[in-house]
Parts: sequence; C-alpha cells; structure tokens
Amino acid sequence: MVANTSIAGQASDREQASSCCSSKSNGSSRPEHPLDQLSIHELPEVTRLIRQDAAPKKLKFNSITLREPPKKEYVAFRDSKGPRPDRKAFAIVLEAGTCNVAEVLVNLTTSKVEWWKEVKDVMPTLTLEDLDVTENIARTDPRVIEACKEIGITDMSRLYLDAWAIGVDDRWGFETRLQQGLAYYRSSRYDNQYAHPLDFSVTVDTEKEEVLAVDIRRVNGERTAIPIAEHNYLPEFISDQYKHDLLKPVEITQPQGVSFTMNGNVISWCGFSMHIGFNYREGIVLSDVSIDDPYENRKRPLFNRISIAEMVVPYGEPAAPHHKKHAFDVGEYGTGFMTNSLKLGCDCKGAIQYLDGIVSTSQGEAAVIQNAICIHEEDNGLLYKHTDFRDGKVISARARKLIISQILTAANYEYALYHIFHLDGTYQFEVKLTGMLNTYCLHPSEAASPYGTQVAERVTAHNHQHIFSLRLDTEIDGPNNTVVQCDAVASEAAVGSPENFYGNGFYCRQTPLRTATAGAQDYCHETSRTWNITNPNILHPVAHKPVGYKIVSRESPRLLAQPGSVVWKRAGFARKTLWVTPYRDYEIFPAGDYVCQSNGEDNHPYNRTIVDRVAEDESIDNTDIVCYLQFGLTHFPRVEDFPIMPAEPVSVMVRASNFFARNPALWVPPSHEDRPGESVLVNRAGGAK
Amino acid sequence: MVANTSIAGQASDREQASSCCSSKSNGSSRPEHPLDQLSIHELPEVTRLIRQDAAPKKLKFNSITLREPPKKEYVAFRDSKGPRPDRKAFAIVLEAGTCNVAEVLVNLTTSKVEWWKEVKDVMPTLTLEDLDVTENIARTDPRVIEACKEIGITDMSRLYLDAWAIGVDDRWGFETRLQQGLAYYRSSRYDNQYAHPLDFSVTVDTEKEEVLAVDIRRVNGERTAIPIAEHNYLPEFISDQYKHDLLKPVEITQPQGVSFTMNGNVISWCGFSMHIGFNYREGIVLSDVSIDDPYENRKRPLFNRISIAEMVVPYGEPAAPHHKKHAFDVGEYGTGFMTNSLKLGCDCKGAIQYLDGIVSTSQGEAAVIQNAICIHEEDNGLLYKHTDFRDGKVISARARKLIISQILTAANYEYALYHIFHLDGTYQFEVKLTGMLNTYCLHPSEAASPYGTQVAERVTAHNHQHIFSLRLDTEIDGPNNTVVQCDAVASEAAVGSPENFYGNGFYCRQTPLRTATAGAQDYCHETSRTWNITNPNILHPVAHKPVGYKIVSRESPRLLAQPGSVVWKRAGFARKTLWVTPYRDYEIFPAGDYVCQSNGEDNHPYNRTIVDRVAEDESIDNTDIVCYLQFGLTHFPRVEDFPIMPAEPVSVMVRASNFFARNPALWVPPSHEDRPGESVLVNRAGGAK
Repeated sequence: MVANTSIAGQASDREQASSCCSSKSNGSSRPEHPLDQLSIHELPEVTRLIRQDAAPKKLKFNSITLREPPKKEYVAFRDSKGPRPDRKAFAIVLEAGTCNVAEVLVNLTTSKVEWWKEVKDVMPTLTLEDLDVTENIARTDPRVIEACKEIGITDMSRLYLDAWAIGVDDRWGFETRLQQGLAYYRSSRYDNQYAHPLDFSVTVDTEKEEVLAVDIRRVNGERTAIPIAEHNYLPEFISDQYKHDLLKPVEITQPQGVSFTMNGNVISWCGFSMHIGFNYREGIVLSDVSIDDPYENRKRPLFNRISIAEMVVPYGEPAAPHHKKHAFDVGEYGTGFMTNSLKLGCDCKGAIQYLDGIVSTSQGEAAVIQNAICIHEEDNGLLYKHTDFRDGKVISARARKLIISQILTAANYEYALYHIFHLDGTYQFEVKLTGMLNTYCLHPSEAASPYGTQVAERVTAHNHQHIFSLRLDTEIDGPNNTVVQCDAVASEAAVGSPENFYGNGFYCRQTPLRTATAGAQDYCHETSRTWNITNPNILHPVAHKPVGYKIVSRESPRLLAQPGSVVWKRAGFARKTLWVTPYRDYEIFPAGDYVCQSNGEDNHPYNRTIVDRVAEDESIDNTDIVCYLQFGLTHFPRVEDFPIMPAEPVSVMVRASNFFARNPALWVPPSHEDRPGESVLVNRAGGAK
Repeated sequence: MVANTSIAGQASDREQASSCCSSKSNGSSRPEHPLDQLSIHELPEVTRLIRQDAAPKKLKFNSITLREPPKKEYVAFRDSKGPRPDRKAFAIVLEAGTCNVAEVLVNLTTSKVEWWKEVKDVMPTLTLEDLDVTENIARTDPRVIEACKEIGITDMSRLYLDAWAIGVDDRWGFETRLQQGLAYYRSSRYDNQYAHPLDFSVTVDTEKEEVLAVDIRRVNGERTAIPIAEHNYLPEFISDQYKHDLLKPVEITQPQGVSFTMNGNVISWCGFSMHIGFNYREGIVLSDVSIDDPYENRKRPLFNRISIAEMVVPYGEPAAPHHKKHAFDVGEYGTGFMTNSLKLGCDCKGAIQYLDGIVSTSQGEAAVIQNAICIHEEDNGLLYKHTDFRDGKVISARARKLIISQILTAANYEYALYHIFHLDGTYQFEVKLTGMLNTYCLHPSEAASPYGTQVAERVTAHNHQHIFSLRLDTEIDGPNNTVVQCDAVASEAAVGSPENFYGNGFYCRQTPLRTATAGAQDYCHETSRTWNITNPNILHPVAHKPVGYKIVSRESPRLLAQPGSVVWKRAGFARKTLWVTPYRDYEIFPAGDYVCQSNGEDNHPYNRTIVDRVAEDESIDNTDIVCYLQFGLTHFPRVEDFPIMPAEPVSVMVRASNFFARNPALWVPPSHEDRPGESVLVNRAGGAK
C-alpha cells in the first residue's frame, strides 16, 4: 500500500530521473519557507517529542504534518513586519490497539509538545497502511474462506479486496474503527479483478485487525456465481491488439529548459509566483499566489491558499451493501497519502520538474513519495489573433500554461489533478478521471438498470457522482474581499418601451453576498451565473468597478442523494455549489476534520462542517473570506469506460475580471506578424475586377 | 476584403509552404468525390452556363457552390448501389444593380441549367466584396465628411468603417440591400481603430453603392468627441514591451510525419474516416464520419454531415443604433467567405496539412483561399492510467487528437473553429473566440454600465452573446436514430422506504423525443441533462440498451433578448438548446436560407426557419434525423479583453455511450508500463515495520 513511497533513509534525496526530467527532494535540507512541508529530519523529531511526552503509552501515528502558522503571524513575517513563526507540527495519534484519538501540537523551534487534545466520537483518516490490513486478514478469516468456497474459490491468494472507508454501518459506532472490503477474484496475478466482482463484502476492525462481519448478498436465497470472463487491459494480456503504426510520434521538447524558476518551493513563472506545499490530506497546497502586474509594476496578491479540501463520490444504487459506498477521498483517505510517485510513470512531456511529497508512517517515520508533484509547461494554442480584413495584416501569439499536478490512486479510480495558470492571468483547476470503474456482480435474475450499467456479462457499474470542493482562500488585490453574484438577465423593460424598444437589452445583475447564509448558492444555468470575487476597496480606474477575479464553473452537478439521506448529511458541503465564510485559522475541511464514520450531525464538538460554519451567518462582506466551490460530474457508466476508463476531464476557471489595466499578456512576443505590402492589395483589386 | 483569397489563375495550385507544413489545393484537379468543392475549373464553367442562360441580363454572382446530391442518391453511390450522381452547382445571383434575387441550379454533367427560381422578399449573404463597398463610398460621401468634420476629422483616410449586415432598420425594406457601417478613427495606418469609436453610423445601399443615411447619435444635443488615447497591440507600437526571455521555446515536432492519410479529401485517422468539404457559407463540412470498430471489425457510421450551420451575436445595449447589432456570421456573411488564409499565419504546431477553400467572386470567378483548412494532431495528455495500489504496478497511455480547423475574421472578431476527434471515439467541437471587441464611444455624461464595460477612457464594449448552431446530421450506426433525453434524478422512493432506505438512489431518467416539438429542448442544469442519439434498432449486446452517442454540452446560454424582440424573431434557432427534425434534402440553415434583413416572420415562402420546420411536428422517432445543438457564451466584456482579446474557449462533446463493446482505445500501445519486482514489496514491508 505504500508502494508509492520509500522510507526516507532508503531514498536518494536528489537524483536525476532522466535527461528530460529533474527531480528535487524538498525534504533533504532544513526548510527555509514557513510553509514548506515537514522535512525528513523534522518528522522523526516530532515523533520523538510526542513519544517522549506520551511515554509509557504506546502510540500509533495517524498523521504528522506541518502546522501552518496562523495567517496573521505568517503574513507579518512574509511582509517583513514580524518574526519568523515557530516551526510547528500537528499530529493525530491513536493509543495503540484502541480507538482513542488525540491531537498533538509540537513546537519544533522550542522542541516542546505544546498541547494534547483528546477528541471523542471521531475517526481519523484511514492511511494506506490501515487499508492494507483488510486484504491480508480477510484471506485467512474462516468466514471469508467459507464464503469463497461456496462460490468455488479455494485458492485464497486469488481473492482480492479493495479496502474502503465504511460510509455507514449501523452495527458499530465510534468504539470500533471500521473499514469495508469489496471483494474481487483474479484468475491470475495481473488479471483485472474488476471483471470478477464477488457477492460479498467484509467489515473490518482496523485497530484490532480482525474481520467483524462477512456480508453475503444472497439473491432469492442464492449465491451469485463469479462473472468469470476475463476483461484485461495490461500488455501481458492484450499486447497482440496493439497497433504500433497508427500513431506517429509527437515529440515535445524544451531545448532551453523550463520557463519557470524555483527558489526553494517558491515558483515564479511569467509573472505568477506561489509557494508549493504538500500534505497527506490535501496533497498539493498553493500559497501566496500572486501576479506581477505588468502595468502597475507591482506584485498583486490573488489567493492566500488553494487546495482541494474535500471530495465525495456518492454511489446511486440504493440496495445494500452499496449504500455504504460514498468515498470522501480527501477526508477519509488523504489525497496526499494516495499520491502516485511519478518515478513509476512519467505522465507529462517536455521539461519536467518534480517535487517529492513527505508523509508519515504509523511508526512516525518519514516516508517520501518521490516525484509526487509534477511541474511542467504546455503550449496552449492561440493566445490571441487578429487579421485586419482590409489588407490581411495579421498578428497572432501562442499561449502557454504552467501546470502543477499530482495523480492519485483511490483503490479503483485515478484522479489526475491539475492546477493550471494561463498567460492572461487565469487560474484553472482541472481533474481528469480515469482508472477503473467500481463494479459489482449481477445475479442472473437481476438487471443492471436503472442504478447501473452492465459493462460486461453479469458485471454492473453503478451510477455515481464525483463532487470536488475547491477551497480558495482569496486575497484579490488585498486581504478583504466580497463575492458578487453575477446573473445575466434580460432588461426588465418590455419590448416596445422606450428603454428597450427592440427588446435586446440585457445586463449583468450583481448581487453582493453579504453574509454566510447568503453566500450559500447554487449554480444557475438560466442566468449563466458566475461569482466575481471583488476587492470593494479598489475601484478599477477605467471600468469603475471593484477589481475582481470571476469564478466560471458550469459543471456543478446537484447532489442527487435526497435531503435527509446519509450522504446528504455526511457530505453537507456538496449541497451547494458555493459556500463563502469568513477566514478562521485551521478551518480547512468542509466535511469536518474527521470524515471517517462521521454521520454529519450538526455542531459535533470535534467535527464542525461547512454547514455548521455557515449557519453562524457571519459577515462575508469586505472581509477576509474563503470560498468553497463544488464542481464535478455525474457518471452513468458506459461500456466504453470498461475495462479501463478513458480520461474524462472536468474543470473550473477563475479569470481576471476588470483586474488589470488591459490584456495582461501583451508582453508575449507574437508568434506571427505579417505586413502585407501593396502586392496583396493588387491581388485584391484583381479579385474584385 | 478578399485579401485572404487569390484568383485561381494567380495562385500556384500545389506548393510546399515550409518543411513543417504541406499544402494541398483541392481545386486543381477534377474532383473525384461527389462532395468535393467545386473546382477552379468547374466554377467558371458554372458561371459560363448561367451567363449564357441569362443573356442578355447582366448578373452579379452572390455565391456559387456545390449542390450536394440528394442523400438517397449519394448514399446509393457511396454504397456501390447506384450510379455516380450528376455533378451540380447551386448559385444565387442578382440582376446587376438591383435586388432581384434568383437561385439557379446547374448540372455540370449535362452542361445544362436545370432551373431558375426567383425568390422574393429575401436578401442573400453579404460577400466580402459587398462589404468592401462601405468604407470606400463613405469616405467620399458629403454627409459623412460633414459628420467627421464636426468632430475634428478632416483627413478622410483616417476614417474607417466596419461594414455589418443591418440587423434591423425600419426605414427600408426588401427593395434595398442594406448594410450598416460602424465608424472608427485611426491616428495612423496601423493604429487600433477600436480605441477610437465614433458616434455615428452609416446605412448603405449595397447594390447602388451609395450611402442612404448618416445617423449621428447626439447626446443632449451634443456630438461625442473622439476618444483619442491610443491602445495598440501591434509590434510597431508595443514591441518595447515584449519580454523575450520569459518563455523558453516548446518545440513540437513529428519526425515521422502525420498519423493520418488523405485520399483526395477523405481523411483516415486512427479508425475515423470522413470527407472534408468546404463552402462559402458553412466553411468546413464533414461528411460520412465513421469509425472502424476495433471489436466488430466493421466500419460504423456516426454522422452523415457536420457543420456550423448558423450563429448569432446579439448585443445587449438597447439604445439606438446598437439595437441593430446582432451578427449572424454564417448566414449574413458566410463562414467560408471570411475564412483566413493560413498562409498568412500558421497557427498550429507540428506536422500540418492544409487544404484550400474555393469560393466565387461577384464576377463568377473562382477565388482560392489558400490553406483555408488546417489539419493537424495534438498530444492530449493522459488517455488512461491505473496503478495497482498493492504493488505499484502501473500502466498509462497517452491521448492524441485530430483537429480539423479554420479561423475566420468577422470584422472585429475572430473565431477559431476546431472539429476534434479523440481516440476514445469522442467528437468535440471547440470554438476559441479572440480578436477585437466591438466598441463604442461614451459621451462624458454617460456611463458604460449596465449594458457595457468601459474598457478605456470613454470607450465602452457592450454586453453580447455568441450562440452557435452545430448541425449534426446523425447516422449513429445506421440511418434511423432516436434522441433520448437523459436526466439525472433522485429515486422517487423516500428516505427510509425499503426501495431507498439510505436515500442514495439516483438514476438516469430517459425520455425518448418522438416528435419535432418534443425535440425542442433546453439544457437543464439541475439534472445535468444530456441527449443520447440512439439507434433503437441496435441493442448493445452487453449494456442491453440501444447503441448511442451522447451530446454533452453545459455551455448553452439562454437567448437573453426578450420573447417578441427583433433578435428573438430573427434568431429563432437560439431560443432552444436542441432542435431535432426529420432529415430533408437541402434543409440546412436554422435561421433560414436568407438571413440578411430577415425579420423572422413565420413560414416565409422563401425563407423557412427551424421554428417553422419544427412546428410541423413530424416524427423524429427511429427515422433519419438532424440535430441542431445551440451553445456558446454570454460575454460581459472585461478590461482584459482590450485592446485584443485573450482567446476564450467553449466546446461541446458527443461521446460514445454504450456504442462499442468496450473502451475503443485499447489498441493504443501504453506509453508507460511498470512491473515492480519483489524489491518494491520489500520496501513496502519496510515502510510498515
């Protein structure tokens, strides 16, 4: 399960992966930036201090991560108005073999544990090590062996289980740390198990490492036979189907190297600059995102912090045991923990810079995900073009984008997450969804419809949604912002009236969102709704409107689970497209700090959600605010998504909206300009003769 | 105005443009495919036959284009079940100096004019030559000279006029062929005129070549002074702002050349094949789009014909004279006529194949737009990836796309139109909007808001929409199709009920659209609506659903002009996201065959629109159907869009939906595969120790 990582001592900290790529471990030396990840030296020191403090209690480390400084303290330091903040770590630990959870704050500058806090009725993230338990213990459990035998499986090495968080299981509460294991069969070691889903699942106690229940789903009292037909996609099975001549190579090279520079983990590219952080839970975190204004000759802040703070994948088949499937891949598993080491597969072309990710093991060691973060550029076609129709005088320039990405494997699914910056000042976040559909077997008496699609004989893939929460801690040209909702609406004046005689009038109706409950909004297709994050204190000198950056997102599916349902409660954040709250330190996660086994109850003392937070209805007007933007897609599986899914993209944009004095990309030299001479005019006269 | 084109005799028919590009004239030899454009030999022959037939009447040729054979006749020939259809041309002509319009059908196989048809109360496309008139005659018109003098312009060579179709002008009817000229000033020859919009416009008689009216917009009785500040984007003005070091080159090369083959104008690429046509009005036309099914080992049809059949750009400022601005760039000007010659600016990278476009002049000559059509491939990132979390075994493949594109200049705006084909069977149509905002001057007493944005001192850019109509003559796995509307909806069963105990159930509600009025539909965000174009006669053997291709389009802004307004009437097609009609030969254009000066009246005898057509309410169920998909965007201009607009993309997808037996791209060899050995497992054990 930690195949992606290597224990710090075993990894070479700095190495050249290949001629096209450079790799940089950001854990090898003492961090210089207050937002740098905990280094491979700091992380064991945190462990030592906690162990010392807890002795003789034995601990299992759930997570150890940087405690980012409080914003005020950090900003003072950044702006050379305050001292360097103490370096701190935040850990979640369990008393070994129990479900007793505590939070610990360690000050590395003073080498002291600052505080412990016991937290009740919550469960922390299931780490990859936790999840790794399930398959191993299930294979030797007598009830599982019996369940397998009944459908003809006697070689237990052919049984595979994908371990998931539980979603919901009324049989146990917070006294037991639960997982579910979804069962599959393989005909051979590399056979695609998703072609052979089995009719039972297991519930596992993570800490006691034992199987609690084997839930066999009998249909009309019968077991469902293994769908035995193979559907493979690996070369060992299908290389004879490869057509090697059809695609001629497209070579993408950057002979002069990359256009960005790195100072530690601070990247600068074409006016943009930002710090690149990483943690076990959110994966990539971008901080201090700013842009050099080419006209005002100053650095203008855009975002304090950007991350994917949560996501949920609710499945739509209501029959047991599928009601348990609604994965929160950020909160339940950790996007950082699940991040691919790109040493195992370089997924980009051109000149690439990698950064490592550093996470902790259950023993409190540092584990390095080598090449966790990929930084590269791509040509992006036309930046602009115009031809004067009179004489064919033409100018065009080429666009470029900077992409900071990670790819994660969440059991069956893969998510490739791309933070993209454009030359016109746009920030875009794109996800490509690929990997494997979660599948289930069908009894001969059953049909896949309406809650799924039969993707192979007796194999169904259930309807599901992917709803991501992009957290934007905004700082549009300054700390205090107001979100203005923008709706495209027809003029209210009737056709034939003096104000709108021909009936063509339309405008942008602007509604400032003043309090958090007003900030809870849905996308509206009828008005092509956008949200302009404005700085009401800075009027654009030409447009005479507050400067802003506008959220453009059309792909925000409604949460389809019913109000009052389990998912609706647990994934409260997914009920709205937009939430806006005032900023508060350490309020990051919209589904709560502890998502595993959460039931979404209101105002849980240790697990407040965005719904609780918004209910306080504080002012979000001209203050330090945070936006949570929900987007994603509803997936009715297609046969074409099987056995492996062609990548499906979904993205959102945040675009400059009367922020710069004019097009901010005019500094880009044109790729083509043409000054036609008189000869063209002669041709033209000839053409019209 | 015909700077893009060269008269056939002057152009070298076949030449190599550069090492990276190859150029192919498809007009030089006798066409072999019934859907090939009229050649440079055929076109003058059509003219000769029409002239001969019309003599002694003098003619002005408006358009001469291929008359595609009736579908049945063509299909019979294509399928080797019928003779080669006669080669025919369709011309629209005016009696010189008048507005008497006639359609002429010429049979080139028999060298005969088959019929003439006089058409009344309609106006044909304004050609580039027609539009070219305005600026020239306005500069010498005494009223224009007077209007200029009053605001200080005495050098009339500094007056520039963008000629537009009229939109609406109640002062004249079909006895006069109208244009409007929007006036600008230039400080010097290459100065950006859109920074200096003037406060008057002219109305011009196209055929008499005279100015009919000069409409000065006085505010409080006053003229508006020229906004005189310059805002330029051409190198002659801003090259000192270029930063040459910031962007290191990204080289994209295809050392083995392209992956597609061309047989005449039929392209084959990775299983896709299609004929590429071109005409003055729709520009690129793709016909016989099919795909080789890698599993069924047969060619399966997808679309008979794809084109952008119409578009409209309604402006939202209700005050005169802006109510006249609602450009139909396909119907009023001709997307083909306005197509850029890419000899004047190669906008793509890698190995590129160009095709010429052939249009006619007012004298009936052939004019060649050299390199009108660009065909190239692009790397498209991840095609798929999966990592087995157990041992890090990983596979990934790279995606590629084929792009068939054209770029057109519609006075101020540019539209780059991309037909894109993906390895997973997806067809995508993307538009990038760039070029110049249409601008207008503000009197000191006026504000730009709410109907526009002040983009420079006293220069406003008005709110507008771009609504495109993608016409899909479908043939999903056979001639007869049914569109099924798909809505993602929650299960109707209540939370707590046995059918939906946990409340997570949701499914795809499928509504077959059976008649044309039922086929008129809007996008619905709440249900993430899609439309599945199915072949009800072919059940997918695994999914047990009709095979289909699904329209996925989220960017379909509502037409914001009010019901009953001029635009609402003229652009009836823009009232709905989707229209579906039964196929009928030569029914192509949803705003009517004659869009200039149309008023959208119902059932015009010579100018039926999609609204008329749909009102017949014929069956669209399991028959030969055509879909018109409206999409685009609402543009509230930003200062950043000035002085030249960074390209803004908008696109729609049509994706295989239970069409293939499985992922159709498994033939693509993986770009990366990794088989970790035991050492990784050892590391992993180490990690968890």
